Amino acid sequence: MSRICGTEQPLVFRDSKNTASIPLLQDPIVNLDHGDPMMYESYWKEVSDKYGVSTAIPGFQCLSYFANAKGLCWFLEPKLEEEIKRLHNNVGNALVRDCHVVVGTGSSQLILAALYALCDSLNEPHPIDVVSAFPYYSSYPEMIEFVKSGLFKWSGDARGFDDKDGRPYIEIVTSPNNPDGLVREAVVNGQGGMLVHDLAYYWPQYTAVTSPAHHDIMLFTASKCTGHAGSRIGWALVKDEKVARKMVKFIEINTIGVSKEAQLRVANILEIVSLSCQRHKPRELENFFEHSRNLLAKRWRKLREAVENTDIFTIPKFPRRYCTYARDFTEPYPAFAWIKSKEGTDCEKLLRGQCKTMTRSGERFGSDIEYARISMLSKDEEFEMFVRRLAAIKM
Amino acid sequence: MSRICGTEQPLVFRDSKNTASIPLLQDPIVNLDHGDPMMYESYWKEVSDKYGVSTAIPGFQCLSYFANAKGLCWFLEPKLEEEIKRLHNNVGNALVRDCHVVVGTGSSQLILAALYALCDSLNEPHPIDVVSAFPYYSSYPEMIEFVKSGLFKWSGDARGFDDKDGRPYIEIVTSPNNPDGLVREAVVNGQGGMLVHDLAYYWPQYTAVTSPAHHDIMLFTASKCTGHAGSRIGWALVKDEKVARKMVKFIEINTIGVSKEAQLRVANILEIVSLSCQRHKPRELENFFEHSRNLLAKRWRKLREAVENTDIFTIPKFPRRYCTYARDFTEPYPAFAWIKSKEGTDCEKLLRGQCKTMTRSGERFGSDIEYARISMLSKDEEFEMFVRRLAAIKM
Repeated sequence: MSRICGTEQPLVFRDSKNTASIPLLQDPIVNLDHGDPMMYESYWKEVSDKYGVSTAIPGFQCLSYFANAKGLCWFLEPKLEEEIKRLHNNVGNALVRDCHVVVGTGSSQLILAALYALCDSLNEPHPIDVVSAFPYYSSYPEMIEFVKSGLFKWSGDARGFDDKDGRPYIEIVTSPNNPDGLVREAVVNGQGGMLVHDLAYYWPQYTAVTSPAHHDIMLFTASKCTGHAGSRIGWALVKDEKVARKMVKFIEINTIGVSKEAQLRVANILEIVSLSCQRHKPRELENFFEHSRNLLAKRWRKLREAVENTDIFTIPKFPRRYCTYARDFTEPYPAFAWIKSKEGTDCEKLLRGQCKTMTRSGERFGSDIEYARISMLSKDEEFEMFVRRLAAIKM
Repeated sequence: MSRICGTEQPLVFRDSKNTASIPLLQDPIVNLDHGDPMMYESYWKEVSDKYGVSTAIPGFQCLSYFANAKGLCWFLEPKLEEEIKRLHNNVGNALVRDCHVVVGTGSSQLILAALYALCDSLNEPHPIDVVSAFPYYSSYPEMIEFVKSGLFKWSGDARGFDDKDGRPYIEIVTSPNNPDGLVREAVVNGQGGMLVHDLAYYWPQYTAVTSPAHHDIMLFTASKCTGHAGSRIGWALVKDEKVARKMVKFIEINTIGVSKEAQLRVANILEIVSLSCQRHKPRELENFFEHSRNLLAKRWRKLREAVENTDIFTIPKFPRRYCTYARDFTEPYPAFAWIKSKEGTDCEKLLRGQCKTMTRSGERFGSDIEYARISMLSKDEEFEMFVRRLAAIKM
C-alpha cells in the first residue's frame, strides 16, 4: 500500500520556477515519493483500444445505499465479490473459501476498520498497542494516531515490543513489505497477539506467489493489484464472522458504505484481469500479470545498472522463489525500491538535489536518513528521467 | 442526512416467514426506517430513457490518486467542483463565492473531517464538546463516539449545554432538521462556539430556499439532493482555508481521497439537474426540483389524510415561506415525517405491529418513544402500502 505524503502538496512535473505556462518542461521535478500506479495506464489503454473496455452506469442505477441488503456486507456489490473470489482463485494468492469479503474505500479504511473491529469488543481500559516491524509503511503511525482514539494506539517497531504477559496487541504484517519489498511474517508472536495482514503487494507482478495466504484478516487493494488507485476500492478477507460484522459497522459509521460506481468498475477490471490469465483467453489479450511483471523487470534492471554506476547507492537483492502462479522460480520486483546512500548522507536530500527527484525519506518508515523509498510504478517518462539522472550523478 | 440503522440488518420486503422463495409477497414488511432515496428512481429512469444519460469510464481512466494535484483538495475532480458551484448558483441555496470545496465519501465522512479540522489545531487537553439541538440526527452520537476520540466527544442536546465561559465547543446545526424537518439556527451562541451546518435537505423539493446560506462550514450530499445515495458523494463548502486543508488531510488519512468514478458520475447528474432548472432547457426534460417537490407534496397529502383518520397519530404542520427558487410561497415537504402517537404509547412499536412498517424510534433522536421518524423517500409501492395500512389501523 502506498500513501500520499503527509501534509505537503504533491509535486507533479513542476518546472523549477513553479509556473505552469511553459509548454516544454526542460528539467522537471520528478515525483517518486508516493506510489501513484501510473505504470499500468499503458496496459489499460491498449486493452481499452482493442476491446472497448468501459464501464457505463445509467443515471437511474445505484441510487440505493444497499447493494446486497441480506448479505453480511450490505454495501458490497455481488458482482465485485464474485470477481474478487474468482481472481484470488485464478492467482492462488489467498484462500477465499470460508472467508467473508468486506469492501472498503481503499485499504486504508479497512485497516482502521480492522483495528476498530479487533479492539472495540475487548473493552480494555487503555488503548490497545498496534505495532509493525521496522521499516514499516510510513502512514501507519499517522492513520492510527490522527483522531487520538481511545481504542488503539501506535506503539512502533514490532521487534522491540514487549507483549507483557499475554496482554492484547495488534501486529500489522505487510508482506511483501512497504517500503523494502521483503516477504514477512509476524515477529512478536505473543499470546495476546491479533494479526492484520496487509497483502496489497502479494500479486505475481511483484513477488513469487508461494502459497495461498490464509490469515485471519487479509487486506488487498485495486490500487496495487490493477493500478486503479483513483477508484478507492480495497477488500478484506476475514475469517471470523463477528470481526467481519464489526468491520462492516465501522464502514457504515464512517462513510455509510462504499461507492457503487467504483465497485462496479473494479469488478469489470478484475474480470478482465481474470480473463487475461486463462489458458483460453482472447488471443490478443495479454496476460496482465506477465505484462506488468515484464515492465517492472525492465525498470529494476535499469535501476540496478544506474545504481551500480554511482558508487554512492545500494539497493537490496532478493532471493528467487518458486511462484505457483508462474510455475517457475521468479525474482521479486517490488513496487518500491528501498535505496541506501553512503553512510552519513541524507538519501532523500541527495536524490532531491542531485536528481531533482522527490522520494520518501527512510525516517518516515522508522528507519535512517541514509534510506529512501522510490516508487517503481510511475509513468515511463518519469522513471526514465530519474534513472538517467541517477546514472549521471556526480558527488 | 439519513443513516442506515445501527447494528440491525436492514429489512427490505421480507415476507412474514422470512423466506425469499414466495414469488408474490402478500403482506411484506415495509422498511421506512432508513432514508434510502428510491423515490428519485422514476425521474432518473425517465431521463435516462429519453436522453440516454449514462456515465461511461474507459478502463484506462482514473488510475491516479490525484484529480487536481495543484488544487487545495487534490482528489476533487474539477468537473465535479464546477457542477457543484453551478448548481448552488442556479438554486440560490448557498454562496459558493470565496468558499473552498472539499469532496467526501458521503457527508458522514465530511462531518468527521470537520470535527477533526476544528479540534486538532486547538491542542486542548480534553476532548471538545459536540452538541446538536434535540431532536438530533440519530447517527451523530455514534459517529462522534465510535473510535473514542481524544479530540471530540458527544455532549448531547445543544439546548441544555453550558458553554462554560467561552470554552470551545462545536454545534452541529441541521437545517432543515433530521428528523423533524424544521428550519434551524444555532442555539448555544456561546463565545467559544464553532458551527458545522449540515444542509443536506436545504433544497427546494424539501423546503423554501429563503436566502443563500453562507456559514463557515456547510455540508451537502448527493444522496438527498439528487437521490444518488449509492455514489457516496458529499461536499463541504468551507470559508477558512486552514480548516479546508485540515478536512482534506482527514480524508487523505482516512481513505486517501474519494472515488473518481463516483465523482464523475455525480458531476454528470448535477449537470443534468442544472440543465433541467434552466429557462431554455430541453422541452421534455422536466425540472428536477419541481418534479420531486410534486411527488413529495402528494405523499405528504396522503400521509396527512391517513393520519387524520386514525385519531392516534399527529404530524407537525409547517409554515409557508417565500422560496426564492420557486418565486412563490411554498410549504415544506420534509424527507422524513416526525410522527407522534398518543401519550404513553410506543410509536415505533405501534407502527411495526399494526402497519408492519419499520420506522426509527424517537428515542434514537434523543426524544421520546411517542415519536418515530418515517422516511418519505421510499419507492412508491412501499409508501402506498404503508399509508393504506396506516389509514386502516385499529386500536
